[in-house]
Amino acid sequence: MFISELITVKKAEKIIAENQKIMPTEIIKLENAYQRVNYRKFISQHSSPPFDRSAMDGYALKSRETFGCSPSMPGHLKIIDQIGAGESSNVKVGPGQAVKIATGAPIPAGADAVIMEEYTYEKNCKLDIMATLSPGENVSYEGEDIKKGDKVLNESMVLRPQDLAMIASAGYGNVEVYQKPKVGVIVTGNELVNPTFHLEGPKIINSNQYTLRALVKSSMAQCEVIHCRDNAKAMEKILHEAVEKYDVIITTGGTAISKGDVVVDSVDKMGEVLIHGVAVRPGKPFGFGIINDKPVFMLSGYPVAAMVLFDIFVRQYLLKMQNILYEHKMVKRVSKKKVPSILGRTDYIRAFADDKIIIPILNKGSGVIRAMVASNAYLVIEENREGIDEGEECGIILFNSFKV
Amino acid sequence: MFISELITVKKAEKIIAENQKIMPTEIIKLENAYQRVNYRKFISQHSSPPFDRSAMDGYALKSRETFGCSPSMPGHLKIIDQIGAGESSNVKVGPGQAVKIATGAPIPAGADAVIMEEYTYEKNCKLDIMATLSPGENVSYEGEDIKKGDKVLNESMVLRPQDLAMIASAGYGNVEVYQKPKVGVIVTGNELVNPTFHLEGPKIINSNQYTLRALVKSSMAQCEVIHCRDNAKAMEKILHEAVEKYDVIITTGGTAISKGDVVVDSVDKMGEVLIHGVAVRPGKPFGFGIINDKPVFMLSGYPVAAMVLFDIFVRQYLLKMQNILYEHKMVKRVSKKKVPSILGRTDYIRAFADDKIIIPILNKGSGVIRAMVASNAYLVIEENREGIDEGEECGIILFNSFKV
Repeated sequence: MFISELITVKKAEKIIAENQKIMPTEIIKLENAYQRVNYRKFISQHSSPPFDRSAMDGYALKSRETFGCSPSMPGHLKIIDQIGAGESSNVKVGPGQAVKIATGAPIPAGADAVIMEEYTYEKNCKLDIMATLSPGENVSYEGEDIKKGDKVLNESMVLRPQDLAMIASAGYGNVEVYQKPKVGVIVTGNELVNPTFHLEGPKIINSNQYTLRALVKSSMAQCEVIHCRDNAKAMEKILHEAVEKYDVIITTGGTAISKGDVVVDSVDKMGEVLIHGVAVRPGKPFGFGIINDKPVFMLSGYPVAAMVLFDIFVRQYLLKMQNILYEHKMVKRVSKKKVPSILGRTDYIRAFADDKIIIPILNKGSGVIRAMVASNAYLVIEENREGIDEGEECGIILFNSFKV
Repeated sequence: MFISELITVKKAEKIIAENQKIMPTEIIKLENAYQRVNYRKFISQHSSPPFDRSAMDGYALKSRETFGCSPSMPGHLKIIDQIGAGESSNVKVGPGQAVKIATGAPIPAGADAVIMEEYTYEKNCKLDIMATLSPGENVSYEGEDIKKGDKVLNESMVLRPQDLAMIASAGYGNVEVYQKPKVGVIVTGNELVNPTFHLEGPKIINSNQYTLRALVKSSMAQCEVIHCRDNAKAMEKILHEAVEKYDVIITTGGTAISKGDVVVDSVDKMGEVLIHGVAVRPGKPFGFGIINDKPVFMLSGYPVAAMVLFDIFVRQYLLKMQNILYEHKMVKRVSKKKVPSILGRTDYIRAFADDKIIIPILNKGSGVIRAMVASNAYLVIEENREGIDEGEECGIILFNSFKV
């Protein structure tokens, strides 16, 4: 049997980190790899460019043939061949000769520069040259960007568009990536109904199902939502199936601190409850446990508390499962209002921040969704502070910083 | 027939903005609405809370019964009923009475406060009260968060997790959102092959297909990639199908400035070329046209130039189609290197920035993917500057600011 005991946010983070799981990998097509995380580094199979190539549409020639050429004193060459993109030529460019060449095409033997079309005049295979070139001008040399065998990308990157181009150029059409965690969200509450214009009696609209699905998606994981009545038997049956089917389980509701509630009791019966109760506001009745080696995050049923607890404890865990080393990015702002707190508790106040200041949106209930909608940041009051004064600098976390 | 003429980035932006299209809307389930853009504002169909409810697990009572109570001097009440979540009770709480109540349950008549379980001791329907309560303590009042008829969300928001909770609570299970643009990416080039360990002759790996698919996805749009050989007939056939099937067409390659190239010529023949050539580096041979009222963005085939042109001209267009009012977020950094440029041209230099400085990653080719991979920002040299000196402040765009 577990003991419900308020612990600090830091201690809770430590316990959760000690139970961090990592996803196995899978091999996917490169075209599906945007924002996935690669397991291995990449070694290029090719030099890039793979050959000396033209950086312009123009004419390949010997640069010394152009010395002194200008619009008023053009040089004259004979065009002996042409090379389009994807083509090559076996001719060798000699003195007095040029080869018409497309951007990206291989420089023919004998040539050491390319003159841009704009500085030429072509007629009947005769070419007037109206500029002076240096050796190498408009030539991209083999291996200039990458040499075969170079490491071109580290492991464990959240792959960006340009990283995919790099992987492709290195020769790879598939990528080994961390699997996305499959998350089962179990929303509890007999009082919950789906959105409707006609609410009856003590029913409440189930908004957590939408918030948590979106939060899980924002953490690069997959989500399924299950609804469960506040009933121990039903809860145990659903938990039993969930630990088989999902990599992570999140519950909302049923975590009251004062005595064991249905969710916490079921997790305790089926596995181990490692955390129940954190000195945090909102979200004090947070729980964390393990059933059959699967982590179970037990969030408050209050919509805003559920969201705050997800942002503090769950997001980071889901990202680390994919080897994304996320940490909260705390920045500083000046508070426009006094906010009281108590020593030993960490507060996450919904607030609106600009580049300099932050305006706490104060309200008493942890169920107040409207304040969350008006917010773009949390004002964080750490456990060693009794509050923030008006005009005092404080730590904040911008919601934008959650974006991977 | 169009005239190829170098115009400024600003002028190009203006021409593109004049041809901005907006997507029609569609109605989707709320559970799929994360990061979609709502067409209408939302008016709440309900007050929230919908009734006076308990904010804690505890006992509903008359607060005046608790005056002076403490652990050393407890008050004594009789428990006359209990109300679980989703339940209600018809009892009226009188003097000397209390009703056991769950978080979220409706406050019974006669009661005006809820004492937390922690401050009580219950045995055989008798309750000891060990704290003094004010009227309203631990009660969330009807309409405290939202009143029926309140506007709870503006139109044209990129919906966040908390916004979905708000919409659900307002009574709505569906949302009218802007459709995601369907983008056809036509990659041209006879020399292009898919990623392979065995490159032959003048072939080049087609990396643009991956980059552009990811870039389009990062702009909240859908993408299909088509490969086309550098051949006017093939290009016209593909363009013809594409303008039927897609909302936006992006091409790469075939846009050489010096004379009409296959892509630009085809667009000119089938519709109108409004831009061909922009004073920008990289990406000078950028084109923009309209065929059958569908915008066609013609990007350079060089991987890095294609990406820069997408970031400058296409991203914003795709977002605005969904009514997302994106603008480049230019911030200031001190350059650690001198970077030359020329008056009248805007340069987008790949660079690595931290909170204070930016290090330009200089290289000569516009095809150098490696510099793009090492970058996290563009250093922007505006058209009215001849370059940036070492130690000089300059405008930059962080890649992170592209995240919606």
